[in-house]
Amino acid sequence: MRSSLDCIPCFVRQTLEAARALSDDATILEDTVREMLLWMADADLGQPPPAFAQHIHRRLRFVTGEHDPHRAAKDRHNQMPLHLLPRLRALVGGSSHPMDTAVRLAIAGNAIDMGVAAEVTESELDQAIAQALNRPLDGKPHEFYRAVRSAESILYLADNAGELALDLLLIEQLGPHRVTVAVRGEPVLNDATRIDATDVGLDRIVEVVDNGSDAPGTILADCSAKFRRRFADAELIIAKGQGNFESLSEEPGNIFFLFKVKCRVIADHVGMPVGAHVVTQSPQRRTESRERV
Amino acid sequence: MRSSLDCIPCFVRQTLEAARALSDDATILEDTVREMLLWMADADLGQPPPAFAQHIHRRLRFVTGEHDPHRAAKDRHNQMPLHLLPRLRALVGGSSHPMDTAVRLAIAGNAIDMGVAAEVTESELDQAIAQALNRPLDGKPHEFYRAVRSAESILYLADNAGELALDLLLIEQLGPHRVTVAVRGEPVLNDATRIDATDVGLDRIVEVVDNGSDAPGTILADCSAKFRRRFADAELIIAKGQGNFESLSEEPGNIFFLFKVKCRVIADHVGMPVGAHVVTQSPQRRTESRERV
Repeated sequence: MRSSLDCIPCFVRQTLEAARALSDDATILEDTVREMLLWMADADLGQPPPAFAQHIHRRLRFVTGEHDPHRAAKDRHNQMPLHLLPRLRALVGGSSHPMDTAVRLAIAGNAIDMGVAAEVTESELDQAIAQALNRPLDGKPHEFYRAVRSAESILYLADNAGELALDLLLIEQLGPHRVTVAVRGEPVLNDATRIDATDVGLDRIVEVVDNGSDAPGTILADCSAKFRRRFADAELIIAKGQGNFESLSEEPGNIFFLFKVKCRVIADHVGMPVGAHVVTQSPQRRTESRERV
Repeated sequence: MRSSLDCIPCFVRQTLEAARALSDDATILEDTVREMLLWMADADLGQPPPAFAQHIHRRLRFVTGEHDPHRAAKDRHNQMPLHLLPRLRALVGGSSHPMDTAVRLAIAGNAIDMGVAAEVTESELDQAIAQALNRPLDGKPHEFYRAVRSAESILYLADNAGELALDLLLIEQLGPHRVTVAVRGEPVLNDATRIDATDVGLDRIVEVVDNGSDAPGTILADCSAKFRRRFADAELIIAKGQGNFESLSEEPGNIFFLFKVKCRVIADHVGMPVGAHVVTQSPQRRTESRERV
């Protein structure tokens, strides 16, 4: 999807917050904000929001000289939900609709915003899980369950580091033998990379690939050729999080998006309220009609 | 006061909202946002926030070709509280501390945000009045009452059009014979100009002057020489609204500010929470010590 003019004030705010999370040097903060204003003044709004965030975080990594500035936060976020897994796994197993419960838990992982500055407490995680289990799933969950039943191979696009442990439960339900998990190719914000997949043990049950890009989303043109081939060949793609939705929402293909709606621009785009837990689908691949050949 | 880096995302949002209130031409909206980003990338943060707003609204008046684009909204806002005046005047007259009640009503006028797009309902106005009468006044109200008792002449710097009718009640308590009301020199947003002072009948009880500027605040360097002389000669200055506070907060002199705290930057600056109804004072004029001469 294109970026909206309404995204611009938000990008400026994100620049400032992200810069503050990395530095308390007033000159770095002011220079970074000014550079981003200058860049945005001329930036192509045809790009999806993660392209803007990619630019912001590249710049911040450059000026601070840190390749993976949020590594410590990601380590903490990876560990936090791990000890809940036995209880949550039992919950999924005992559910009358295990796939539905696992989808809800995966979205709970996305709902809880494990930002890089603020810590997430265990009670907030519990609350996010309780809410995801109780509130309706918006969108097309039944189409998703149907698509899952018939797919022989699934490409699972991960989002943030902290939610990987909850993704693990959904992947167990999908059947690890047919799942490949894709993570970002380079560190950006608190998005999951190979290290995080290893941290939560995903690499022991599924193949993990990286997309070759440092965008906090999946901008295909910015991904490696190898990843693009995996993407094109995938029978079913599950894309977690708003960043993956923003970058792939108009991509034809058998893509299902699982995320919590976190801003008004996306709410307007999907026609659901901010806060909705969504399972939605990309526009279907055009099927060539035989009559017209 | 200087503008904060935290003001920048807010200025970008204000640009977009102000542009939307004036035009639904997508090109005008996008071009205006881009021009403001470019300008802000290099703008002096030593300027107070109203200098940024002044630039934004000048640009919008230029691109839309409208000299006073919010005239109709201001007319409505001026009229709305007028029929409440007899009841509110009786409330002030019957109060055990009429000056305190009148100050609270003047701040209620500032508290209710008569934006240019959204309409303010009468019940919202009633609610703002009830809240102002019941919540504590923060800051230095007693110093203000003392300053008022001893001043022979008072310069009253008005803020938005809609709150003038409530300012009228405070001016009646101050004694119109010693009050001069200053309005903005040119239209900007929904700030009060001479037309508004006439609309609510202020010109029939006090002298009305304009400051010669189109900033939504009082940036002395941008005001007319005539106004600056009035300002320098004033025995006591009462400045309404956050914009006047932002532009005059560091000006030495016998200035009292009456406003509602509307954002976190100002809350941090005055050390009071967002939402506080404040009567505060500028830094005192340095008195030359005779011993040191």
